Amino acid sequence: MPRLLHHPLDPASRLARLMFAEYGVPIELQEIKPWVRDPGLLEINPAATVPILFEGGEPPIVGALAVIHSIEERYSPTAVAGLFPAVASDRAEMWRLMEWVLGKLNDEVTRYVIEEKIVKRDRKSGTPDPSVLRVAKANLVEHMLYFNWLFATRHWVAGDSMTLADFALASHLSCLDYHGDVNWEGAGETRDWYARIKSRPAFRTLLSDRVTGMPAHQGYADLDF
Amino acid sequence: MPRLLHHPLDPASRLARLMFAEYGVPIELQEIKPWVRDPGLLEINPAATVPILFEGGEPPIVGALAVIHSIEERYSPTAVAGLFPAVASDRAEMWRLMEWVLGKLNDEVTRYVIEEKIVKRDRKSGTPDPSVLRVAKANLVEHMLYFNWLFATRHWVAGDSMTLADFALASHLSCLDYHGDVNWEGAGETRDWYARIKSRPAFRTLLSDRVTGMPAHQGYADLDF
Repeated sequence: MPRLLHHPLDPASRLARLMFAEYGVPIELQEIKPWVRDPGLLEINPAATVPILFEGGEPPIVGALAVIHSIEERYSPTAVAGLFPAVASDRAEMWRLMEWVLGKLNDEVTRYVIEEKIVKRDRKSGTPDPSVLRVAKANLVEHMLYFNWLFATRHWVAGDSMTLADFALASHLSCLDYHGDVNWEGAGETRDWYARIKSRPAFRTLLSDRVTGMPAHQGYADLDF
Repeated sequence: MPRLLHHPLDPASRLARLMFAEYGVPIELQEIKPWVRDPGLLEINPAATVPILFEGGEPPIVGALAVIHSIEERYSPTAVAGLFPAVASDRAEMWRLMEWVLGKLNDEVTRYVIEEKIVKRDRKSGTPDPSVLRVAKANLVEHMLYFNWLFATRHWVAGDSMTLADFALASHLSCLDYHGDVNWEGAGETRDWYARIKSRPAFRTLLSDRVTGMPAHQGYADLDF
């Protein structure tokens, strides 16, 4: 059985878990706090990031890009049914949005929230910095406007079919939602899309995640939020 | 002929150009300053990044991840001869290093140098901030130590064959080298590797790049640097 080194509130780990769940592949989860920079982790991944995937006796598969390509190549049932679209221009649009989420949304929003609300708390190195969280919140408002604009003309984030980019976006928003950092009141089309993706069977595993000493925000696991 | 919207000192654009050159595909280059956020650019790519690839009448292919996948799928001569390794574990190692370069090296070094030395100058919004450049320089020292460590046991950055990860790393180091920001004196194995990749025919196009009002550092185009 594939074993995934992950953190429950790490969006890239969530993306890998959603892929496995969607493809019906049971996995063994092993939780780790990557920011602790455990020597065992650094030996496998000097960048000290998760996810890291172990498959049998093969070398570990390290980092989001390696892991998503590996899961898609190994477990996607067919090119058509997989999370990577079969048509080249649809795939290009998926990668554009993947880069938006893994790069821009992460840089401008998610990583600040993780650093301030999870890492600092775990390290006991002070309380979250409100000015940093304010910037992240303001940036998230801009991102949500862009997603609303996209969803006004398409059913899924990269087009009319669900792709890996939907899982990437849902991974980030669900991490933010765990802390109550998504304003669903003003989220319009993005809220409808999130309700749709949240009710997929693959999503269940994420909704039961709980981090010790850090209760999920009310509504986090509700399908009718 | 494919048309690439790019900036000569943008590492992701350089990566795309290296791929085209390696695969022997002539392209039309169209230079743009993405930080100006021209309305025409924002319409195609609200993230205001390059590269953006135009192929015939198809929708534009936007961003590094979309462009590299598209070039590989369209122009790689065969799976074996392409820049994506044929063996799954080698591909995983390539993606790990791609993420290192496109994510970590960019975050910790390249984007600071570009912002301080190119964007600020072009916008006439002040001089480079020495404290930011000091941090970038210190971070680069750490990265170079890691690359030296890798090259001590392998011929190319992701293993014994050249892959896309070599082009990604070379794209970033060549941008930094344009400004004279790479200390080759202490670069050991990484210098040997760079000399090797710099002498590939595909690299020539980058070495003749010049940005108006910003001369290349001495040695930038020398194969014996």
